[in-house]
Amino acid sequence: MSRPGGRRRGAAQGVPQRPFGQVERTFAPARVISDDQVAAIHDAALTLLATQGMRVLSPEAQALYAAAGARVEDQTVRLDPGLVAERLATVPARFTLEARNPAKSLKLGGGFCIYASVGGPAYVMDNDRGRRDGTFAEMVDFLRLVQSLNVIHQEGGCPFEPMDLPAHTRHLDIFHAQIRHLDKSWQTQTLGRARTLDGIAMAAIMLDTTPDALAGRPVLLGIINTNSPLQLDVPMAEGLITMAAHGQVNVITPFTLAGAMAPVTLAGALVLQHAEALAGIVLTQIVRPGVPVMYGGFTSNVDMRSGSPAFGTPEYTRAAQVSGQLARHIGVPFRSSNVTAANEVDAQAAWESQMALWGALTGGAHLLEHAAGWLHGGLTASFEKLILDAEMLQMMEAYFEPFPTGPDDLALEAIAEAGAGGHFFGTAHTMARYEKAFHNPMVANWDNHTSWLDKGGITARERANAVWKQMLAEAEDPALDPAVDEALSDYVARRKAEGGAPMN
Amino acid sequence: MSRPGGRRRGAAQGVPQRPFGQVERTFAPARVISDDQVAAIHDAALTLLATQGMRVLSPEAQALYAAAGARVEDQTVRLDPGLVAERLATVPARFTLEARNPAKSLKLGGGFCIYASVGGPAYVMDNDRGRRDGTFAEMVDFLRLVQSLNVIHQEGGCPFEPMDLPAHTRHLDIFHAQIRHLDKSWQTQTLGRARTLDGIAMAAIMLDTTPDALAGRPVLLGIINTNSPLQLDVPMAEGLITMAAHGQVNVITPFTLAGAMAPVTLAGALVLQHAEALAGIVLTQIVRPGVPVMYGGFTSNVDMRSGSPAFGTPEYTRAAQVSGQLARHIGVPFRSSNVTAANEVDAQAAWESQMALWGALTGGAHLLEHAAGWLHGGLTASFEKLILDAEMLQMMEAYFEPFPTGPDDLALEAIAEAGAGGHFFGTAHTMARYEKAFHNPMVANWDNHTSWLDKGGITARERANAVWKQMLAEAEDPALDPAVDEALSDYVARRKAEGGAPMN
Repeated sequence: MSRPGGRRRGAAQGVPQRPFGQVERTFAPARVISDDQVAAIHDAALTLLATQGMRVLSPEAQALYAAAGARVEDQTVRLDPGLVAERLATVPARFTLEARNPAKSLKLGGGFCIYASVGGPAYVMDNDRGRRDGTFAEMVDFLRLVQSLNVIHQEGGCPFEPMDLPAHTRHLDIFHAQIRHLDKSWQTQTLGRARTLDGIAMAAIMLDTTPDALAGRPVLLGIINTNSPLQLDVPMAEGLITMAAHGQVNVITPFTLAGAMAPVTLAGALVLQHAEALAGIVLTQIVRPGVPVMYGGFTSNVDMRSGSPAFGTPEYTRAAQVSGQLARHIGVPFRSSNVTAANEVDAQAAWESQMALWGALTGGAHLLEHAAGWLHGGLTASFEKLILDAEMLQMMEAYFEPFPTGPDDLALEAIAEAGAGGHFFGTAHTMARYEKAFHNPMVANWDNHTSWLDKGGITARERANAVWKQMLAEAEDPALDPAVDEALSDYVARRKAEGGAPMN
Repeated sequence: MSRPGGRRRGAAQGVPQRPFGQVERTFAPARVISDDQVAAIHDAALTLLATQGMRVLSPEAQALYAAAGARVEDQTVRLDPGLVAERLATVPARFTLEARNPAKSLKLGGGFCIYASVGGPAYVMDNDRGRRDGTFAEMVDFLRLVQSLNVIHQEGGCPFEPMDLPAHTRHLDIFHAQIRHLDKSWQTQTLGRARTLDGIAMAAIMLDTTPDALAGRPVLLGIINTNSPLQLDVPMAEGLITMAAHGQVNVITPFTLAGAMAPVTLAGALVLQHAEALAGIVLTQIVRPGVPVMYGGFTSNVDMRSGSPAFGTPEYTRAAQVSGQLARHIGVPFRSSNVTAANEVDAQAAWESQMALWGALTGGAHLLEHAAGWLHGGLTASFEKLILDAEMLQMMEAYFEPFPTGPDDLALEAIAEAGAGGHFFGTAHTMARYEKAFHNPMVANWDNHTSWLDKGGITARERANAVWKQMLAEAEDPALDPAVDEALSDYVARRKAEGGAPMN
């Protein structure tokens, strides 16, 4: 059989890929607890918000809550169920997120999900040099791979800290790099008002518009973490309020680690997650009714032997699916993640990521954060894990494709042609379809064992290393209007001269 | 936090394990195609059986089909839809499979699934010695691990061929070893009448009864593979008929590899699988109405670049879930498998097995064949993969456990105790629950990266090697009545003197 060369290839010519796009999931999300159980968790969260309340450190946020009818005493904000319900009513169930390249704008909600690359790690790692502090140049390499990998729909807000850049102005260079090296959607940073405004200003330049005019055009998505349990700090409140005021998308994500910052029972951890998420979602709707916002589920558990966070556990999977049920219960789009605590791109990394992927995607996630590249419980961005995850994401996309059962698919004629005891290699039915019939891997090796040994016995981790190097060698930056690039340079220069953003 | 030593430990004292048992799945299996699509595949299979028919090489099987009303011409057996429906009506939806140790008898059907260890490979492999022909002594080691691993409910019919034993009588030594080293359920071999009768005779001795008296007591389960497309050979027909006549469980499993022995479209491959499975299931009910039988789904696809079989692909996952829908449509318990084509116990082995596990278990499988130990597309049994799979199976069991949402689980009091910005490490709620709150891994390592490097940077593959060696060192054979053992020895000696079983 001839090699189906050239099909499904993306930006990197040599590596077979699916085309860029979102596959709409057509079957119902998992329903792992009953509607009564969902209601029990929701009601407990409402009770928590009405009685214990949320500690909100930002006076501005306190004032916004109070003006909307919340009870604010000292720093504690208490929300009654009626107020929560009223504010949930204005959350849009689905929306579109613009990308620099309009062909790469993204649908979010219903059966559509966005796969976003890893965001936030402190370190970078690859097979050749191990784990280390990252540089801006390496970050740009990582962005080029994110651009090249078609299955990644969105960049996730800076893959790792470029430690060779000054902390106060680093975000400006990162935003500029995100716009230069990607024509895909990218996530911004929301730690404090100044950084958040810089992201919005630069996104406006990118689209040749103004920050005010962005209000009706969701372009940016940013993660807001509550300080579990039950606390919203000043920088996150500023980020949330600034994003919402500009019509941009907050992803309210409590970090409820069962046994540490959350109850040891999963149901209890989810009550806490749900309460904190509700508090944040309500605040976005107070700031700007109707602004898109997402429900972030990030509940996992600690290793009770050591207190270390664990990810991709059975508890994580269940929490993701129940989070999806909770998000659908309140009609808010749902964010989950692809996570692992593994230390190497080995079998553990794969099985933990798979447990997370199945939890997230059958759980109905509309944003899969850290979809590719996350290692070490989120402390490290890995070049090889980026490729392995892209492989696994391509498999999930193939899995969610439509399953046709028309007469040609049922293939009774082909079965008659092959005959009892025959084979289908050369039938007309096979010849017409084989090139596009099945998922075509980037990393998986299906040689027989002797051939595999003859070729050097290369493991998946080492094959992934070769894939990203090939892809990076072939990467080309997407065209960017020189006037836009110059305007961005001017903005960055001005803001650097002003001293950048305060450290929070 | 203190180490929760001693909890959940099984036969091997040093390796933490869940106790032996089956977790009843309480939420509905996946429904990835519509009922109309299921009916379309079912109807196409019925059309296939009525028109093209099945080539049945065994005159005995032809006669049985003919006597039941099938149209038999030359070697072709055609079954009308009415005949199929009539025979499906007698298939039991659930049953219990006896083990030597009654406490390890197994439920099959409804929410209950049996995890069976790998069966059938030609080779054995471990990290230390690579892939090689296996010996009887190594096979016994593998059986001891199968006995020690609580999450494995059933031995899968000989993990790999002991090549140091003569082929004609090897099965007798294998059956004897299965009974000696396991008090769990074990699978038998069904290639031809003589081997099948030996398994039944020795199972009867094991239970201190007679082959005839076993008829109402399902004890043995055996795999019947049709020769796809549309052919049932003589040895498999003999095995099927002999098992069914003695009230034992046939698992009718077409090997429908899309693009090779089956149509390149998944729907077409499943039409073929369904038709062949129906033909086999019908034959069991002709032989003995009401005898337990299972619907085996094994549809995967080939790599269209090379023609090699691929496993754990997105196509495999979808095929498993649709197979579950088809099996439920006809009311027959469903068998699926944990498979991979990977050449090493690396990330690929894990992600392919995960894709298979999720397909099988959310697909509603009642028997997970090759649940632990399969590598190289089934050509090899791996000691390290056995351990990795046991780890992943324990995770799936934890995933399927009940999800309580009572007042104590919702934990409002614990949340009040921790307070905003506090933590849950020391709350009474945590202290009362932490030892049993979460899945406790055998292989996963959740150290931070520096600690992991300090301890030698041991990957999952190497940790699995240490686990099986420790477990094997600690393994103890379950007690066996010396009189039973002696009777088995006598049987084996007599049958060896008679020349064993013919080679098929």
